[in-house]
Amino acid sequence: MPALLKERLFTPGPTPLLMEAQARALTATLHHRTEAFRQIMRETLENLKYYFNTKNDVLIFASSGTGAMEGAVSNLLSPGDRALVGTAGKFGERWLELAKVYGIEAVKVEAPYGEPISVEEIKNQLTTNGPFRAVYVQATETSTAVSHDVKALGAIVAQYPETCLVVDAITGLGTTDLRPDEWGLDIVIGGSQKALMIPPGLAFASVNEKAWGLIQKSKLPRYYFDYAKERKNLAKAESSYTPATTLVVSLHAALNYIRSISLEGLVANAAMLAEATRAAANALGLKPFAKSSPANAVTAICPPEGVDSGVIVKELRTRFGAIVANGQGTMKGKIFRVAHLGYYDAADVFAIVAALEIVLQKIGHKVELGSGVRAAQEVYLRRSA
Amino acid sequence: MPALLKERLFTPGPTPLLMEAQARALTATLHHRTEAFRQIMRETLENLKYYFNTKNDVLIFASSGTGAMEGAVSNLLSPGDRALVGTAGKFGERWLELAKVYGIEAVKVEAPYGEPISVEEIKNQLTTNGPFRAVYVQATETSTAVSHDVKALGAIVAQYPETCLVVDAITGLGTTDLRPDEWGLDIVIGGSQKALMIPPGLAFASVNEKAWGLIQKSKLPRYYFDYAKERKNLAKAESSYTPATTLVVSLHAALNYIRSISLEGLVANAAMLAEATRAAANALGLKPFAKSSPANAVTAICPPEGVDSGVIVKELRTRFGAIVANGQGTMKGKIFRVAHLGYYDAADVFAIVAALEIVLQKIGHKVELGSGVRAAQEVYLRRSA
Repeated sequence: MPALLKERLFTPGPTPLLMEAQARALTATLHHRTEAFRQIMRETLENLKYYFNTKNDVLIFASSGTGAMEGAVSNLLSPGDRALVGTAGKFGERWLELAKVYGIEAVKVEAPYGEPISVEEIKNQLTTNGPFRAVYVQATETSTAVSHDVKALGAIVAQYPETCLVVDAITGLGTTDLRPDEWGLDIVIGGSQKALMIPPGLAFASVNEKAWGLIQKSKLPRYYFDYAKERKNLAKAESSYTPATTLVVSLHAALNYIRSISLEGLVANAAMLAEATRAAANALGLKPFAKSSPANAVTAICPPEGVDSGVIVKELRTRFGAIVANGQGTMKGKIFRVAHLGYYDAADVFAIVAALEIVLQKIGHKVELGSGVRAAQEVYLRRSA
Repeated sequence: MPALLKERLFTPGPTPLLMEAQARALTATLHHRTEAFRQIMRETLENLKYYFNTKNDVLIFASSGTGAMEGAVSNLLSPGDRALVGTAGKFGERWLELAKVYGIEAVKVEAPYGEPISVEEIKNQLTTNGPFRAVYVQATETSTAVSHDVKALGAIVAQYPETCLVVDAITGLGTTDLRPDEWGLDIVIGGSQKALMIPPGLAFASVNEKAWGLIQKSKLPRYYFDYAKERKNLAKAESSYTPATTLVVSLHAALNYIRSISLEGLVANAAMLAEATRAAANALGLKPFAKSSPANAVTAICPPEGVDSGVIVKELRTRFGAIVANGQGTMKGKIFRVAHLGYYDAADVFAIVAALEIVLQKIGHKVELGSGVRAAQEVYLRRSA
C-alpha cells in the first residue's frame, strides 16, 4: 500500500502552484479577440512591468522560456554578427546551442560549474576581441545554483552602443534584486513556471530602446518569436498568434498576489529560504555546491562523500513525497537541488530539511536529528526579527 | 505588506482538502435523478462501508455531522425513554442538549475534561439505574483530544437487547481502529470534513440490525433525518431529498484514494502523527492535555504556565499561516489543538512543530530549537522502520 504522502514540489520549475490563480483559470472561457480578454492583457502587461522592475515593454509568448531565449538571438543578430556567451552550466550552454543553429559565431567565457562568470573576462573579451552584437548570460544558473553579477556586466556592456546585454532571468526574476533600467539589462527573459507560481507555457522578454534599435537592423530569420511584431500587437493588448488564455488569466491572478506581498517581499522570501537551506546543509555536514554567489532561486547541495545524489532524491520522494531535482547532465548524481522560487514559505523549508535529515540518517550519514532544522530556524529568526 | 504564507489548516475539521477529490467535484454537473449519479452513489455506499469497517448500511445526509447525531436521538427513542450519556467535553454535552430538546431524560456519566469516560460507571448505571434505550458517547472527544473505550462499552451494552450504543465517531473514523460489527457499535456517526479530506456538508450514520429493530418502535418526531426512509431510498441508490451532489462526487473520489492507501494505512498515519506531536510537545516542555487515552485525531497541548493559548494560536497564524484550534468553551485559552485526521503527513508535523518552537521562543518560553522536531523525527523513524 502506498503511504499517505502529499506531493511536494521542490524543483526549480515547475514550482508549487498558487491555487487561487489556478482557480481563476478554471472559469476562464474567454475568447482572446474580445475586449474582456484585452482588459486582462492590459492589466497583466502593466503588472509584468512591475514584476520585471522595468518601464520597458514586456512581451508574452505562448512557449517555454527557451522560446523567448531563441527570440533574443534571432531578433538581435544578423549573419556575420558575433556573440559573447558567459556560461557556467547547462543553461549557459543553451545560449551556445542557439548561436550555433543560427550560424552565429559565439565566443565563450566559461566558468567552472559552481562558480559565477568572471566579469573581468567578459570585459577583456569586449575590449580585445570585439565587436560583439550581444552578450548572453543567465541571472542565475539554475543547473549549478549560482548567481551571476549582471549589474557589473550591465555597466560594462553599456559602454558599447552596438552591443546588447541579454539576461536569461527565468529563475532570477522574483528571487533576485534585478534592475533592468538602472543596470542596462537590455533584454531580460522570464518564464511562467518559476517564481510566478503558475504552470509552464508562457515566456516573457523585456526589451529596452537600445535593444529595439538593434532589433530593427537585425536580419536573422524569425517568425513566431518576432519581437517587433509582438510589441506592435501588445500595444493594442493583442497577440500575434493565439495566446494561452488560461495561463494569461492565471498570470493575471498571480501578479495581483505578488503585488499584494510586493516584489521586494517575494525576493526577500526567496533569499531567506535559500539562506536557511544553506545553513541547514552546513549544519548537517553537507556542502552547498556554489563556491560563491549562491542563487536565491535554488540551492544545490553535494551529497555525503561516496553517495549518489540520486539516492537522496529517490528517498525524499518515496518517504516524503518531496520532489527535489538531481543534477543535470554531467552533474547528475553529484548534487541535488532544492528550490525556493515562488510559492514557498519557511514551514516548507523546515519540512524538507527535517525530511532530509531522516534520509541522511537512513543512508548512513551521521546526523544529529533536528540540527539542520535548528540552523534554518535561526536564519528565520534573524531575518524576521 | 503581508508575507508569503501558505494557509495550512491544522484544525480538527475542516481539514486539508484532497485536491484530486475537489477537482472531480468541479466537473460534476450530474443531475441526481439519473443512472449516472446512482452509479456514483452505489460505489460510494460500498466504499463507505469499507471506511466505516462495517457490513451494515451507511446512510448519507446533506448536513453537518450534528444532523446525523440528532437523527440518532429522534429515530431511536420514544417519549418516556431514557438515555445514558457519557460526556467528557463539548461534544459529549451535545448529546445532552439533543436529549433535552426532544424531552428525553438523560442520565449523565461525566468524566473530567482530559480524561476518558469511565466504562465502570457506564456499566454501573446500566445495571442499577436502567432501563436506558440508548447510550450515547463519542469515539474521540475532539474538544479535549481524548479517546473513549468504545470497544469495552460495546461489550457491555451488547448485553442489553433493548439498549443501543450510539457512537459519534465524527473524528474517530479514519483515525482510530473501530470495529462496529465485532464490538457492537449499533449506530456510528461520521462527517465529511474530517479524515475523509473533503469539505463540510455530509453526515453519515451506520446502523445495525439491532438499531433498526429499535428504530421501528420509536415514536419521536423526525422528518429530514428519518433513518428508515433514507435507508429505503439508498437501497435504490436514491436519497429522500436533494443530495449534495458535488460533495458526493468528492466523497467518491476521496474514498477511492483512501482505498488506495488502505483504511489501516490512514489510521496508522494518524496514530503516527499524533504520537510524534505528543513526543514533540513533551520534548518542548509542554504537556499534552489528555491525561490518558490521547486521541489520534487531534492533540490538545497546554501552553506554558501563564500563557494564554490564544497567543500561540495567533502567532502560528500570523507568522506561519498555520491554523490550529484554540480550546472551546471553558477550555479557551487553556489548550491549543493540532489535528492529524485525514490528509496530513510526516512533513506537515515537522513543519508545524518547527513553527511552534519559534513561536514558543518568541513568547519567552525556553526552547532548544529543533528539539521538538527531533522528537517527532524519532517517532517517525521508530514507526516506519
